[in-house]
Amino acid sequence: MKVYGDIVSGNCYKVKLVLAMLGISHDWIHIDIMAGETTNSAFLKRHPLGKIPLLETPSGEFLSESNAIINYLAAGTPLVGQNAFSYAKIQQWQFFEQYSHEPYIAVARFINKYLGCPTDRQQEFAAKQAGGHRALGYMDQQLSMTPFLTGAVFTTADIALYAYTHVAHEGGFALSGYPALGRWLSLVAAQPGYISMHDAARAQGITL
Amino acid sequence: MKVYGDIVSGNCYKVKLVLAMLGISHDWIHIDIMAGETTNSAFLKRHPLGKIPLLETPSGEFLSESNAIINYLAAGTPLVGQNAFSYAKIQQWQFFEQYSHEPYIAVARFINKYLGCPTDRQQEFAAKQAGGHRALGYMDQQLSMTPFLTGAVFTTADIALYAYTHVAHEGGFALSGYPALGRWLSLVAAQPGYISMHDAARAQGITL
Repeated sequence: MKVYGDIVSGNCYKVKLVLAMLGISHDWIHIDIMAGETTNSAFLKRHPLGKIPLLETPSGEFLSESNAIINYLAAGTPLVGQNAFSYAKIQQWQFFEQYSHEPYIAVARFINKYLGCPTDRQQEFAAKQAGGHRALGYMDQQLSMTPFLTGAVFTTADIALYAYTHVAHEGGFALSGYPALGRWLSLVAAQPGYISMHDAARAQGITL
Repeated sequence: MKVYGDIVSGNCYKVKLVLAMLGISHDWIHIDIMAGETTNSAFLKRHPLGKIPLLETPSGEFLSESNAIINYLAAGTPLVGQNAFSYAKIQQWQFFEQYSHEPYIAVARFINKYLGCPTDRQQEFAAKQAGGHRALGYMDQQLSMTPFLTGAVFTTADIALYAYTHVAHEGGFALSGYPALGRWLSLVAAQPGYISMHDAARAQGITL
């Protein structure tokens, strides 16, 4: 099992978390987004859209899209639920993440942390704040009722949402107004096998 | 089984297609997006984000996000694949749809068809074209190799992508440059139980 990824990307970090929590042996091949390594011809042969994370199975098949990858790695474990409806609720939160959370929080973080919020992106950065807070408020509402996003059990829905939520402050989002969400972040970090983005990056020789 | 939806929304039409193809009896409750029926207090009690489609199970549980709903309805059938990897490839295409296809093609269609491309949205409309064509090109590349998106078998990945692709021209996207995609559109429309968006709308008393 090979994974092509850049650990500082929340989408890639999701995959590392599942691999660590399930103890799956793998080769992690570092692809430096900022150095353009997703768009060179060697990488585009693996994935025409030039996106990471990308999984390569032992038989040489490729799988992209972070949430599809983590659900595949967790297939047959309690991380993907106990029945068709609980798996559907997990997917509901993951599609929410990709449509209503990541495009605001991850993009604001990218503009702020990696581009240094240049003048020509400040309007876009500001425009991301309302949508990001709407997503965080929705999560907080659920987490005030249940310990994890889909109920009593920790799943890949929590892993999917944790990745960018725990670094949302790097996108300008203060989490102090979301107490249930704050408790949930601690609960995820206390799961067996958890590895922080910082430690995972250090293991790759990357300084955050 | 109840479904709250507006059939002219591609995301809602996906659900109708799966219900029709699998012959699942249901009550379809028409929610008029343009009349603001997703944001009134009665609907927000069912789903705080005010989004359709929304599924209500016989036991009163709610499920949102179109692709989570169609995978749930198709659980245990060949529409969601034969094994963990084929289901993962289906999800890969569905996450691609929500992140790299719908935000361009569905939004351009909404601006053009439903808002009449007003002056203050024309720049946004134009900005959607490149991303939409990138998504269509990626689909066409896959469909030049395999009859369906994940291979030889028709799945919920095809249903997810068909919904907005078959009305992409309403968002200003000419499909003439994508021959494999054109063949695939005909192949989907020939599946047993298929119902067109037009016929499904007419059954709801809606004129397109």
